Amino acid sequence: MRHRIAVVSSAALLALAGTVGLAEAQPASLYAPSAVVLTVAQGEDAATVVRASTLSCAPTAQGTHPDPKAACTALAATAGTLDTLLDAPDSNRACPMHYDPVTVTADGVWQGNRISWKHTFSNTCTMAATFNGNAVFAF
Amino acid sequence: MRHRIAVVSSAALLALAGTVGLAEAQPASLYAPSAVVLTVAQGEDAATVVRASTLSCAPTAQGTHPDPKAACTALAATAGTLDTLLDAPDSNRACPMHYDPVTVTADGVWQGNRISWKHTFSNTCTMAATFNGNAVFAF
Repeated sequence: MRHRIAVVSSAALLALAGTVGLAEAQPASLYAPSAVVLTVAQGEDAATVVRASTLSCAPTAQGTHPDPKAACTALAATAGTLDTLLDAPDSNRACPMHYDPVTVTADGVWQGNRISWKHTFSNTCTMAATFNGNAVFAF
Repeated sequence: MRHRIAVVSSAALLALAGTVGLAEAQPASLYAPSAVVLTVAQGEDAATVVRASTLSCAPTAQGTHPDPKAACTALAATAGTLDTLLDAPDSNRACPMHYDPVTVTADGVWQGNRISWKHTFSNTCTMAATFNGNAVFAF
């Protein structure tokens, strides 16, 4: 019986040591920060920003994004690889072929790691059809 | 009298045309967006982000920054040139010379124009002495 107690204590100590190690690596908070600025810009170079939203996902979903909770869930689904946002276009939608480029960007931090993502669509219709209702750039 | 009315009308029309032109350039809102992610990271490469704050300054000051209003005022004082944050160090403060670098970044949009700023301090004391109470990175 005494032996069993000792085993439990060791496990507890190991768990405690793990927690302290994490706290040392990130001294300011108990969660890795996730904070991004999302922009929609006219043109290919993203110089003239038309719309911008802030989004913070830890500890709670907040920001100027109209639906921070949905946007954080959608961003979490990408696991930091934002190209996956392009993977589910609306196949039932047809877009005109004219070229009036619009560029979207996401810059900041996702779970403690820096992210910087940029994609140019040939026009806003193509952008809407590609994002297909995804919440991240729905602002 | 009739002539004066005509002159006023032209001026009014010109003003209206100017407004419409601006609205076309930035269709989504009447103000240029200002939204940034501010980070503090360990090391020179800013890869491991320790703290991050979002800040949006238009139409109102908000974000996860603890004092968005003061931070937006301080950011407005730089007019988008964030190097000016380094111009007023606390000359009464002495810092140890050890090298334990900390890197701060600001990425996003300031009044419609993209900004990306980064600065590495040799240690946190040097950072605090250089910012000298400035609200932007006080989080």
